[in-house]
This record gives sequence, structure tokens and C-alpha cells, in this order.
Amino acid sequence: MQNIKLTLEYDGTCYHGFQRQPDFHGPTIQGVLESKLELITKTEVRVAMAGRTDAGVHARGQVVNFFSPTKIPMDKLPKAVNSVLPYDIRVKQAEIVPDDFHARFSAQWKRYIYTIYNNQFVSVFNRLFVFHVPQALNVPAMRAAAQAMVGTRDFTAFCAAGSPVKNFVRNLMTCEVRQAGPEISIICEADGFLYNMVRIISGTLVDVGKGRIKPAAIPQMIEAGDRKTCGITAPPQGLCMDYVHY
Amino acid sequence: MQNIKLTLEYDGTCYHGFQRQPDFHGPTIQGVLESKLELITKTEVRVAMAGRTDAGVHARGQVVNFFSPTKIPMDKLPKAVNSVLPYDIRVKQAEIVPDDFHARFSAQWKRYIYTIYNNQFVSVFNRLFVFHVPQALNVPAMRAAAQAMVGTRDFTAFCAAGSPVKNFVRNLMTCEVRQAGPEISIICEADGFLYNMVRIISGTLVDVGKGRIKPAAIPQMIEAGDRKTCGITAPPQGLCMDYVHY
Repeated sequence: MQNIKLTLEYDGTCYHGFQRQPDFHGPTIQGVLESKLELITKTEVRVAMAGRTDAGVHARGQVVNFFSPTKIPMDKLPKAVNSVLPYDIRVKQAEIVPDDFHARFSAQWKRYIYTIYNNQFVSVFNRLFVFHVPQALNVPAMRAAAQAMVGTRDFTAFCAAGSPVKNFVRNLMTCEVRQAGPEISIICEADGFLYNMVRIISGTLVDVGKGRIKPAAIPQMIEAGDRKTCGITAPPQGLCMDYVHY
Repeated sequence: MQNIKLTLEYDGTCYHGFQRQPDFHGPTIQGVLESKLELITKTEVRVAMAGRTDAGVHARGQVVNFFSPTKIPMDKLPKAVNSVLPYDIRVKQAEIVPDDFHARFSAQWKRYIYTIYNNQFVSVFNRLFVFHVPQALNVPAMRAAAQAMVGTRDFTAFCAAGSPVKNFVRNLMTCEVRQAGPEISIICEADGFLYNMVRIISGTLVDVGKGRIKPAAIPQMIEAGDRKTCGITAPPQGLCMDYVHY
């Protein structure tokens, strides 16, 4: 048995999230990936993932690992699996890793990117990968608010209700707003993320951009720890799991 | 009655080309656009188009015009039509033009862009908008071949069989190969294009990139006027009608 690490890219539009569902709720990335890995390796496969992504959320650099006795060389495995995977899921890289590597627990930090399309009309070419905001946005105000989020803090206010976690402290190392034409990207890097954290940060920054929330209100918002004081949960299609660092 | 010019963007993936079909062959851009314009203007609408695009071909700057008695102001029309159009077709601009304006006959030149994705695996994010070529391509050779295409020439060799046109002379003003990471774009500007001309030019340049055709063979290929000497017809999804100049 060897421990195999895969780096994945996927368009989450047509999937009910990454994680295999206990009952049938529709296709999941994990369900499709495992069935195709089983087809190619001819053994049962259960993958561990770096992070769950919700329905409609995308990934450029999701990471999974699984144990397999397969003899397929690692430089051949991506092509073999891609030949049977649907075109909205691609295996970009495969490598053998030490037995104690775990896609989730070995991760040191992750990067998510949330993309806003700030134009009168959304483009047909990126409509599945952006949050369309037609109103003018104050990007310098968004930058100031983003900067105020950075740090090791209790992010209770930026976590969706019903999360099973007990510790809401995370180290948000980067929260940066980049603009390239009509595209505004919010780059978030942290040692871990709470449920919906990037989408609530992004929704709050959009509300800052619209002038509904002042950048100066952010420290108090974090301090109060009340989800209701923050902005909207930005929709899933703008979110992309970009990179996992080990 | 006023003559209304619309600038359109569309993702052609789900359509059987631009032009309304005489019998039912599946949805067309023209068919959907006309039915939604009729819904909004409450009058019959028949559009003239700058150029037909085939099934799977996209547009950033297709232009149509139609005559209508509508009283809807031109700055409100795009939003009204977009509210009922599917998300893969957008009206970007509407303006009143002189009665003698015709989307096709008034066009001075057009720009098409053909995009190749030159990487081991196609990206899930652009898979519907590029031609995936995994083999290494010699871009300087492609540039030399592209330069040899430019000029006012008889492009019979670069026209698909069965075209009804009699005159195969076109002025190809620009044929440029641009590279940005794994994306290789072929920019073609001409006073007019023959049927499948950009896709045959692009397929020929890919064959040049692979070393199957030498750049020095291009002038002779044009001279001979034989479709069989050129490269493949590159697939439709890489093609985008970018701009029409009036």
C-alpha cells in the first residue's frame, strides 16, 4: 500500500459539493472521483480531502490522499484518471507521499480566492465563476476593511450558524483586495477557515464597497462576535479553493 | 420605426449556431434573441447579423440590427432584454442608428480570436472556450507562418467546401499569434472571412507549431488554392467573434 496525494481542479457548478453524501442528494466531486479512481486502480478508494467545498464552489488546488496498492506510475496516473473523469474535474498531479501525510491534518495553510465581477452586465464567459455586483464599489474602502480583518482572531462573527467547531480562533495571514479591470478578487490565506468564513468576509467587503459598512466598524464587528452585524454570505460560485500548503 | 443596433456577447456551447434554422434543429442564438426581443418590444422582430457563427462558436462583439417602433429608451433596452434572456446571451449595448445601417453590409472589418490551450491538461475553467493541444508547439514558427498569411489574397485554400461564394479574395489585415502562459491566441482581422477561414488558418498554424507544416510552405499553399494542402479545421469552441468595425 502506498499513500497517494492528488492535486485537483474542478468546476463545482454541477456538483452538490465536494463531500460524498450519506444519502443520494445528487453527484458530488468525491463520489465521482472515488468511483473513477476505483475503475483505474481496480481497488476500493476512499479519499481524505484538504477541505470540503460547498455546492457550486470551485477549486484550482484541492488536495486529497488515499491508500492504494496500485502499480500505475505516478506520472501516468493523472492522464489515466482524467481519461474517465468528466471534463469539469481534472487531476493535475499525483505523487507518493509518506504514510503519515493527511490532506487535511498535514495542511499548514490554505488560500481561497473570491472573485467579484463589478460591471453593468456579467460576462457570459465567467458567469459561473464570479459574483456579479453591478453597483459601483469603493475598492480603497474594501482594502482598508480587508486589512482590518488580518490577524489571529476569534472569527465567530464570520462563521455560519450550526458549525460543530468549538474553537473559532484562526490566523488570517492575508486578506487582500486586487482589482484587474471589472474583476475584483479577495485573496484569503489562513491556517484554517471556519464554515462559510471566506464567503462572509467577501460579502462583508462588498457591503463595505457599497458604503453600507464602514471599514472602521470591522474591529468592533470581530470583537462583538455576532454574525448578524456582518454583511451577506456571498454566493458560492465566486469562491475557489486555490492552494493548500504543506 | 427606428433602426436599432445591438452588440451581443454569447457562449455558443449550448446553441446550434447563430442563425435561425429553417426547420427545428435545436436552439439558435438568433431564435432565442428574436423571441426575447419580441417579448420586450411587443412587436415582431427579425434581426440582421454581422456574421453567422457556427454551433459551439462564441462571440464577445457580435452585432445585429432590427427595425422596431418600440419606445423603450436605448439605455434601458439592454437591461430589459437581459432580464429575460438566458445567462449565456447578453446584450451589451443598444443604440439607434441611421436607417441605412446594416449589421453585415455596413461592416468595414471584423476581428476573430482563436484560442489554444497548450498544456498537459485543459483547465476546467476555460474548457468550453479553447482548443486543447497537449503537445509542445513551436510558437516562433507559428508566428512566421501567420505573418505569411497576411495580405489581400485568394483564400480558396482556407475555405471549407460547399461555400456558395464566388469571390475568394479577402484582405487579411492582421494574423497575429500571442502567448500568455499556456494560452496561445490567434488574432485575425479582415474585411471579410470565408466559411471556416479562421478555423482552417488556426488548424494550419497548430500543424506548423507541431512541425508538420513548415512556415515557408504557406505562400505556396495559398497559391495552390487547394484545401487539402492546409491543416485541420480547428474545433469550434476555440473561436470567438471579437469585434466588428463600422
